[in-house]
Amino acid sequence: MRFGIQGTGMVGKAIATKLVALGHEVKLGSREADNAEAAAWVKSAGRGASQGTFADTATFGEMVFVCLRGDVSLSVVKSVAAKLKGKIVVDVSNPLDVSKGMPFPLLASLVNTNSLGEETQKLLPESSVVKTLNTVNCEVMVNPSLVKGESDIFISGNDPGAKKKVIEVLRSFGWKNPIDLGDITTARGTEMLMPIWMRLYGLLGTPHFNFRIVK
Amino acid sequence: MRFGIQGTGMVGKAIATKLVALGHEVKLGSREADNAEAAAWVKSAGRGASQGTFADTATFGEMVFVCLRGDVSLSVVKSVAAKLKGKIVVDVSNPLDVSKGMPFPLLASLVNTNSLGEETQKLLPESSVVKTLNTVNCEVMVNPSLVKGESDIFISGNDPGAKKKVIEVLRSFGWKNPIDLGDITTARGTEMLMPIWMRLYGLLGTPHFNFRIVK
Repeated sequence: MRFGIQGTGMVGKAIATKLVALGHEVKLGSREADNAEAAAWVKSAGRGASQGTFADTATFGEMVFVCLRGDVSLSVVKSVAAKLKGKIVVDVSNPLDVSKGMPFPLLASLVNTNSLGEETQKLLPESSVVKTLNTVNCEVMVNPSLVKGESDIFISGNDPGAKKKVIEVLRSFGWKNPIDLGDITTARGTEMLMPIWMRLYGLLGTPHFNFRIVK
Repeated sequence: MRFGIQGTGMVGKAIATKLVALGHEVKLGSREADNAEAAAWVKSAGRGASQGTFADTATFGEMVFVCLRGDVSLSVVKSVAAKLKGKIVVDVSNPLDVSKGMPFPLLASLVNTNSLGEETQKLLPESSVVKTLNTVNCEVMVNPSLVKGESDIFISGNDPGAKKKVIEVLRSFGWKNPIDLGDITTARGTEMLMPIWMRLYGLLGTPHFNFRIVK
């Protein structure tokens, strides 16, 4: 399958590397077609890896992951919206306000009664936006066994068919039973896990932890 | 030990009942000294149980639990602030905006860059406010074994000595290893678990579930 990954940060590269390792064709997108981070990744990732602009990447992918800083994510999505029509867009970004001190709060306009997932869906009325993976560190995203014992990953989105396809990808990453929380408004709940996640990160001294829902 | 419990709702009564069962003296506080809910509770709870106004209850308790609706909690705390001087105040309330539709968002002024825990501490500069138990259903609060397998309870507060005493109470409820997240600002993280908690409640069909942190 052809995947587009928007963003050359830790998250984008971790997901892109895993997808290449699973045998997929993956284009890593950034502002410039010759972005140095992306070029280095293409060289190391090997067969199936390529790079391009955000627009190239949106065109290339059958499924497109958005792995951008929360404060730039929406403007990038908007700029390539036409190229994402009819596609599944997986929003992995968190709306952290990095202009504030640590631990970062969420962006005031994207919390509690709104979310980045919802705003992404609003910008892409002809795409199926699925929010997932945003509640764990990027190494755990693509290797859940870094966390001892089973733990949970959540998924939110309006289109059941799209969620089914994303769940197949999550399973290929090692997530056995993703929890489907419901429509895209449920992304509020997962994005709002960030504040306790950041505190637990400080406390546990490792980003390799996760939430498990027990009943 | 003498406990004051502010609030005659499900949460207040669950905690009050457990404390009486553990052999403590417990006064259940409400607006009126002869509140009918509280009177019925006193009758059923037996030896050690009493009722009173919010003021009576603040005076009575060596440790005082606040188990009120998020939108009235601060005004009640403010009204009895003088009587809480030098005491440990355990804030169990969540700042849910019940004027909105389900699932309730949090109150706009008490989320993300603020919390009910912090505002409670600001109103009580001479008390030690500890936030805990607000992330689970009231039956689970006082009986963690309702959730199969181990799960976690969090604690936030500025005063390590006060947290130590509250942890003893939590242990007597059955919580083996409460997670001390840090100062009272960490209450933001636990209060912001409410949105995903409400979605999981709908999904799982039972309030008897909890978060476990695995690493």
